[in-house]
Amino acid sequence: MIELEEQVDEKFWRIRREEAYKRFLEDVEIGYVDRDIKDLILLVFSKKNVFTTSSCSGRITVVDSTYPWQRDEAFVIFKKHEPIQLNELTSIIEQRHMHRLWLIVSGPIIHFNAVDLTTANKLLIIARSAGFKHSGILSIGSGGIVVEVVSGIWVPFLLKDRDGYVASDLPRIVSIANEMLREGKQKLEKLFKFLRDADI
Amino acid sequence: MIELEEQVDEKFWRIRREEAYKRFLEDVEIGYVDRDIKDLILLVFSKKNVFTTSSCSGRITVVDSTYPWQRDEAFVIFKKHEPIQLNELTSIIEQRHMHRLWLIVSGPIIHFNAVDLTTANKLLIIARSAGFKHSGILSIGSGGIVVEVVSGIWVPFLLKDRDGYVASDLPRIVSIANEMLREGKQKLEKLFKFLRDADI
Repeated sequence: MIELEEQVDEKFWRIRREEAYKRFLEDVEIGYVDRDIKDLILLVFSKKNVFTTSSCSGRITVVDSTYPWQRDEAFVIFKKHEPIQLNELTSIIEQRHMHRLWLIVSGPIIHFNAVDLTTANKLLIIARSAGFKHSGILSIGSGGIVVEVVSGIWVPFLLKDRDGYVASDLPRIVSIANEMLREGKQKLEKLFKFLRDADI
Repeated sequence: MIELEEQVDEKFWRIRREEAYKRFLEDVEIGYVDRDIKDLILLVFSKKNVFTTSSCSGRITVVDSTYPWQRDEAFVIFKKHEPIQLNELTSIIEQRHMHRLWLIVSGPIIHFNAVDLTTANKLLIIARSAGFKHSGILSIGSGGIVVEVVSGIWVPFLLKDRDGYVASDLPRIVSIANEMLREGKQKLEKLFKFLRDADI
């Protein structure tokens, strides 16, 4: 048997699961929950051995940063979970910026917390079958096993550079970004079907 | 204790580690090993509880595919582990293509195989501290625990679209791509230092 120093404390895990569920219902109430992922999270809370902690159904952002993968040094100046229109970018482009402006399309990302390694492994198999090829276990500890379910859909487009250069093909960027966003949402539907049929 | 149905068979694991080491030395001999990562792999083979299976020090590729994240449907038409020059792209751009041409900068990716979860967890902590924020456990089985160490550096640039459109800013793309490639190589140096001092 593989043994770990730390043990998932199931009683404590069940309490955390209940808390996460209450928080989710409150967030739905307030309108914080991204509507394209609400049903999937509800489905997950109908399962016994897993819950979700954070999730995103896919989005388009515009960030001001030297590199598009930066988090701490980046300013998010636009965020939308649905397809965008060209005129939403034009005012952004005209504003002053510090580093570079990147439009970033991200596919869905969901963090699951599983009660044991068997469930975590099942989840990884389901996720990969649904096209979430970059999924993996982020941590294993007494609070549960955190599984990140993520696809390869993450594409930045340079909108504006430090020297004032502006991308000449904004309509093309908008069109391709929306196409990619939809690809991500389709993967989410596939994941929903696979999860629905899973014994986890 | 967290228990798994499947157990890492340590004796079998040690044999696989030896095989991987022989294969690595043969690859070095033939010239298959990406020179920017050779020293790191040698360092890992000096450790007791871990070995590497596949690795890349970071590279720039040009692929012909609808979406840059595709693997099976993509044709790789250029690949280099060092900075590129503008003239290397011009002949590629002139050729016919099927879908879209993407230039993709990828940071380093290393797959480790750890003998136990304690080692896998240590490795994840080291990797994240060195800036490999997207690292995770890919699988847990009798053959070992596979840990993928990967940063957020993965950036595609559209070079040519289906309708014949060609990016107008090729010199800028080359310059930014090379800058990103170097960022990745620097993270690799940091990982080397952290691994050197680690008891794994």
